[in-house]
Amino acid sequence: MTSEDRVVGAGSSPNDKAADSKHLEPLPVEGLDAFYRDVEDARLIPLWTEIGDLMPLTPRSHAVPHRWEWRHLHRIAERAGALIPVGRGGERRAIALANPGLKGAPYATSTLWAAIQYLNAGENAPVHRHSQHAFRFIVEGEGVATIVNGDPVPMRRGDFLPQGGWNWHSHVNESEHPMAWIDGLDIPLQRQLDTTFFEPGLASDNGGDDITVPHGPSRSERLWGQPGVRPLSKGGGWVGNPLLAYRWEATDAALAEQLALEDEGFDATVGDGHAAIRFTNPLTGGDALPTIRAEFHRLRAGAGTADAREAGSSVFQVFSGNGTAKVGDRTWTVDRGDLFVVPSWELLSISTEEGVDLFRFSDSPVIEVLGLAHGPLWNVY
Amino acid sequence: MTSEDRVVGAGSSPNDKAADSKHLEPLPVEGLDAFYRDVEDARLIPLWTEIGDLMPLTPRSHAVPHRWEWRHLHRIAERAGALIPVGRGGERRAIALANPGLKGAPYATSTLWAAIQYLNAGENAPVHRHSQHAFRFIVEGEGVATIVNGDPVPMRRGDFLPQGGWNWHSHVNESEHPMAWIDGLDIPLQRQLDTTFFEPGLASDNGGDDITVPHGPSRSERLWGQPGVRPLSKGGGWVGNPLLAYRWEATDAALAEQLALEDEGFDATVGDGHAAIRFTNPLTGGDALPTIRAEFHRLRAGAGTADAREAGSSVFQVFSGNGTAKVGDRTWTVDRGDLFVVPSWELLSISTEEGVDLFRFSDSPVIEVLGLAHGPLWNVY
Amino acid sequence: MTSEDRVVGAGSSPNDKAADSKHLEPLPVEGLDAFYRDVEDARLIPLWTEIGDLMPLTPRSHAVPHRWEWRHLHRIAERAGALIPVGRGGERRAIALANPGLKGAPYATSTLWAAIQYLNAGENAPVHRHSQHAFRFIVEGEGVATIVNGDPVPMRRGDFLPQGGWNWHSHVNESEHPMAWIDGLDIPLQRQLDTTFFEPGLASDNGGDDITVPHGPSRSERLWGQPGVRPLSKGGGWVGNPLLAYRWEATDAALAEQLALEDEGFDATVGDGHAAIRFTNPLTGGDALPTIRAEFHRLRAGAGTADAREAGSSVFQVFSGNGTAKVGDRTWTVDRGDLFVVPSWELLSISTEEGVDLFRFSDSPVIEVLGLAHGPLWNVY
Amino acid sequence: MTSEDRVVGAGSSPNDKAADSKHLEPLPVEGLDAFYRDVEDARLIPLWTEIGDLMPLTPRSHAVPHRWEWRHLHRIAERAGALIPVGRGGERRAIALANPGLKGAPYATSTLWAAIQYLNAGENAPVHRHSQHAFRFIVEGEGVATIVNGDPVPMRRGDFLPQGGWNWHSHVNESEHPMAWIDGLDIPLQRQLDTTFFEPGLASDNGGDDITVPHGPSRSERLWGQPGVRPLSKGGGWVGNPLLAYRWEATDAALAEQLALEDEGFDATVGDGHAAIRFTNPLTGGDALPTIRAEFHRLRAGAGTADAREAGSSVFQVFSGNGTAKVGDRTWTVDRGDLFVVPSWELLSISTEEGVDLFRFSDSPVIEVLGLAHGPLWNVY
Repeated sequence: MTSEDRVVGAGSSPNDKAADSKHLEPLPVEGLDAFYRDVEDARLIPLWTEIGDLMPLTPRSHAVPHRWEWRHLHRIAERAGALIPVGRGGERRAIALANPGLKGAPYATSTLWAAIQYLNAGENAPVHRHSQHAFRFIVEGEGVATIVNGDPVPMRRGDFLPQGGWNWHSHVNESEHPMAWIDGLDIPLQRQLDTTFFEPGLASDNGGDDITVPHGPSRSERLWGQPGVRPLSKGGGWVGNPLLAYRWEATDAALAEQLALEDEGFDATVGDGHAAIRFTNPLTGGDALPTIRAEFHRLRAGAGTADAREAGSSVFQVFSGNGTAKVGDRTWTVDRGDLFVVPSWELLSISTEEGVDLFRFSDSPVIEVLGLAHGPLWNVY
Repeated sequence: MTSEDRVVGAGSSPNDKAADSKHLEPLPVEGLDAFYRDVEDARLIPLWTEIGDLMPLTPRSHAVPHRWEWRHLHRIAERAGALIPVGRGGERRAIALANPGLKGAPYATSTLWAAIQYLNAGENAPVHRHSQHAFRFIVEGEGVATIVNGDPVPMRRGDFLPQGGWNWHSHVNESEHPMAWIDGLDIPLQRQLDTTFFEPGLASDNGGDDITVPHGPSRSERLWGQPGVRPLSKGGGWVGNPLLAYRWEATDAALAEQLALEDEGFDATVGDGHAAIRFTNPLTGGDALPTIRAEFHRLRAGAGTADAREAGSSVFQVFSGNGTAKVGDRTWTVDRGDLFVVPSWELLSISTEEGVDLFRFSDSPVIEVLGLAHGPLWNVY
Repeated sequence: MTSEDRVVGAGSSPNDKAADSKHLEPLPVEGLDAFYRDVEDARLIPLWTEIGDLMPLTPRSHAVPHRWEWRHLHRIAERAGALIPVGRGGERRAIALANPGLKGAPYATSTLWAAIQYLNAGENAPVHRHSQHAFRFIVEGEGVATIVNGDPVPMRRGDFLPQGGWNWHSHVNESEHPMAWIDGLDIPLQRQLDTTFFEPGLASDNGGDDITVPHGPSRSERLWGQPGVRPLSKGGGWVGNPLLAYRWEATDAALAEQLALEDEGFDATVGDGHAAIRFTNPLTGGDALPTIRAEFHRLRAGAGTADAREAGSSVFQVFSGNGTAKVGDRTWTVDRGDLFVVPSWELLSISTEEGVDLFRFSDSPVIEVLGLAHGPLWNVY
Repeated sequence: MTSEDRVVGAGSSPNDKAADSKHLEPLPVEGLDAFYRDVEDARLIPLWTEIGDLMPLTPRSHAVPHRWEWRHLHRIAERAGALIPVGRGGERRAIALANPGLKGAPYATSTLWAAIQYLNAGENAPVHRHSQHAFRFIVEGEGVATIVNGDPVPMRRGDFLPQGGWNWHSHVNESEHPMAWIDGLDIPLQRQLDTTFFEPGLASDNGGDDITVPHGPSRSERLWGQPGVRPLSKGGGWVGNPLLAYRWEATDAALAEQLALEDEGFDATVGDGHAAIRFTNPLTGGDALPTIRAEFHRLRAGAGTADAREAGSSVFQVFSGNGTAKVGDRTWTVDRGDLFVVPSWELLSISTEEGVDLFRFSDSPVIEVLGLAHGPLWNVY
């Protein structure tokens, strides 16, 4: 039993191992075998043989800490671009991170999906909508637009594009080069909750075949993209978060100001040399999506975080720079584009010599709204 | 593809089968095998081979409709009472319903745990607490008390005892006969979310060894059990719902009044001859537990419900009388104590010749707070 | 400047008197008279001549502590019963407490209306509805029913009958003796906010002329009056709080249990010998009305409260027993039926030799929802 | 009785005039005079003599429609600048709009305070804080900074500066010319609710005497001024809304984009040629202040609004351009800087030949949170 197994603040009570099924399973007695056979035949399972996995002293995820290197990921996506037509069967040429602990499921963590999507020059990913909440994050490249309910949203390095469930959407690459990006969804959560609805659409559901991608911002951004003000009209018709793109320029400026304020002697960062922002829905001030939190972290050269953990899981992607990430008993050097996952209650720390920018998303809104949050990752609001 | 697979209101679009992986998986081409091998080695999984299961047109639970007969269940519990000591290993002599569709997991549905617990005369189930929300429902018998943070709560036929996460609790059978009841918990949900904390306790954490069970109501009921009034003191110290027992007398009276009002010509029931109540937390007016909804339904002789379904799953237990339950493509005669489960989006109807009372619990609070609810089961508030 | 004028926790700063207009009004200079005349002509008023009243260091209500004796009040109501027909002009034979500090307005405090209403044997008060939230509290007598959206609710000593805004209602005295009770409304608040709508109705809007008052409980109580359970049907159609009567039996039992638990050594009261309950809306667990809080307090013989105050005002009515009430610089002996008011931020204490039961209502829900609460009256939840 | 007195949707029932006290006051009978005298002596007031004013069929504010011309207002303020020292007695050289209907109270409407504040070159308005929520809006000029909890916030034409209750603040004019602006507060509301706390401060409470006003944005804006992102640190320490300035550039761009989108054929405005934004608290997405709503409206040349009204009151200030405002039975030509008030339930329409920009603030958050809203002013979200 490692120290992680102990509940926070629990003393060493005589019952301390009560939940450990290995040592305390009842001894065989006469009739026990027949009993267990009949239990199984009746579609029943005793608690006492399962409690160690079901009710550990602290969260003990089946998901494990893992890192995926961007260069491998991107190479696989390129090969898919050559081999797999888009829009056949899977609707998207997306390849998901499959956590080694999750028995072959295409899940990055117990609740989060993360995939690289790849679109060749001139390709379109067809129109559909689904109950799953989704976002795109772009670590490099440009040229693709996501079209949401007829509103084309150009995608560029550093941008975060949330998309609440049940909005029609498609992707179009009008450029002359392929583009890859990261899709994040709550597929594992909704698969477990059995709340998944999906509807394939027609071009006419999403602005028609002849839609053109503007050079400037989307209509969503023109209506919702000014700080501190909202339109009084209902315009747009997007479901959920009406702001469809959070541009790199704003994220970068916000992080830079935090570090500048720290230099000027003011309380502005979450830790020494550690700036952080959260993407918010302008309608609520809360998370950008009902089931997914998205943040951006910047560690200046030489900075490092304290060890911290929380109930709930995260996925990180390095956006620029590089550093060292420790998750549970794993330690990796992480570089631009690399992704790594932090299962629930695993200790995490990040440090950097040259400075590092990281995008992060997590299931915290779910954990928090259900009242199950423990141990916020860092010293946040 | 059955009709249940189609999204509500979806027309017959040309893309109608786009999500069906069986027919649209990309054809083999040269290099595909090597590609898939490398994908697997890189801990990746393509979306296009999985989308049919991950993103069905409507919820398609792995859990299946199933019924457990009380007489079988109770007999198994009795045998456990003879064979298995309480409080060793599993902390409780509880035997869980294991949905045949869920691959050997001790889960009644994707999100709900239901178990029969059995305590012999004079036995105690030891003190512990956990992040999981729980309740007891008693279909027959009496003699056991659940002790919550030192407050002994007697249990009797028809009573519903919710218990918010992280309250200390134990069970004591001071009577001269064994007693069985149903435990409901959100174990599958919290196991999936990886938010499970557990702490074994000492007798001193829960009122001490010499606690005596009162003949009258618990302190919780004395403080919180009057309709429409709440104490202004903080007294008690229970976490979450402060009302620890909902007595059969009140439930029965509420159901009887609804049918009497229907007889008098007023709108009081959810359907012809169908009375229903929900157990509520007096602090919020909302569900009795943050992750579990609990209700009681009464169909008078000759009544039947319409077909209905919803996103999210339920467990029913017949409390008295009998009837016919149809869930998806299954139909059962159900009698006192029998349990059956309704996976997400399965059509449900219940009818009765002699009249039937049913206890129900579901994961609706989770589905609703996340904004994922569709298709309330019956015509409710 | 009395000690009440100082802000809580403020030290003696050099600016301590800055807000006191009497001493710091600017000295007369040439042109000042003409200036003030032109200011007035322009429909303007300077801040510096008004700030002492507008922005005191702590709340300084125009309302003053005052007591009304029940025997006087009741005698006036009796005389009105002989002189004033019901339902002409004023719709109700109600006589309001007029706080001596409020310049002839019929307001008990700055935000609360309290009146004695009187109905002779056989009289009806006509049907109407209004945006104001209202309640009835009965200190003695019976025989009248309030009919709300066609549902007759009998009124008896000790009962509390809330009535959310915009419900049709009338009163009918089918007995052979007159009856008086207290009406509480948020008239001053809504008059100030200019949100008052009123609609006179016809008998047909409220159950018709031939409605009969039942001997038993109202339909509302039959649907909503069991502890911890709510109907799933929409039945009733009341606006706001669906529970139309809180009966004395439940209030009395709740208070008695708190004192019994205190005797048994448990934490159950808000102070030594001081039991207290709040009436709650079963839909929300919050206050019985959106703008009015209602409570019941019981002090056992020999008990007394600490001095306490809060932002916001209250009206108390002695229900039984007697005691001494101190409000600000006033002290009264108060007896059955007597009413007294506690303006905002006035110190209050109550003590009793023989024991006393008090009904209380206040504007706390308004103060709290606007985030303006300071200094809860007693040590409550 | 004018048509405004009738409740919306009320038909012509026989009881239609029941609430009109003039016609239905009870006829004099013997003993009535003595009765009324005794009622008054007992500090009581009958409902039947007051109901016409207390409970009108629709809101009938004591406040009246009124307009103040900026050139008059500004001239008065200039004279005050010569005559009245700042910071003596009134703490601020502020002159309030006094609605002619409100009997000499310095209130613009029943709930809102609006004043012109004037600061000469080199003057400081001293440090204080109060429970009242406040804002500044600047129709012309620059050179002054408001310092909030030590953070200097420069003020310029078009800026909106909200300031939640209980933040320390002062104003400093470091420029070489006087500056005037509009203060808006909830003084009338809090005076009526008796929730007003005030504390004079020392320079050291607000950054000290030697604080310098930056050329760039405040720290608040640097932390909270990027669209869609929030800092994770607690930095700043402001109470309530952490964003202390909403700059004209963002407001102007948002309004311009709405009209451009309308030109492009998209649904983006609240009416033809009528763009409108609301200032929002980035923490909540709701109103900029808990008790005050603030908006900006732009009518393009030739546009006009429909007649509309709502429960609750507003103050408008013309920011640029000019137009015609109709409020109730009053019609004015309004020009840059002019202010006019819209009492509750008065019909309002605005039209313009040359185009007009208007700042608006109202008590809507109060009305809405209490559930008393009727008739939103225009067709808004």
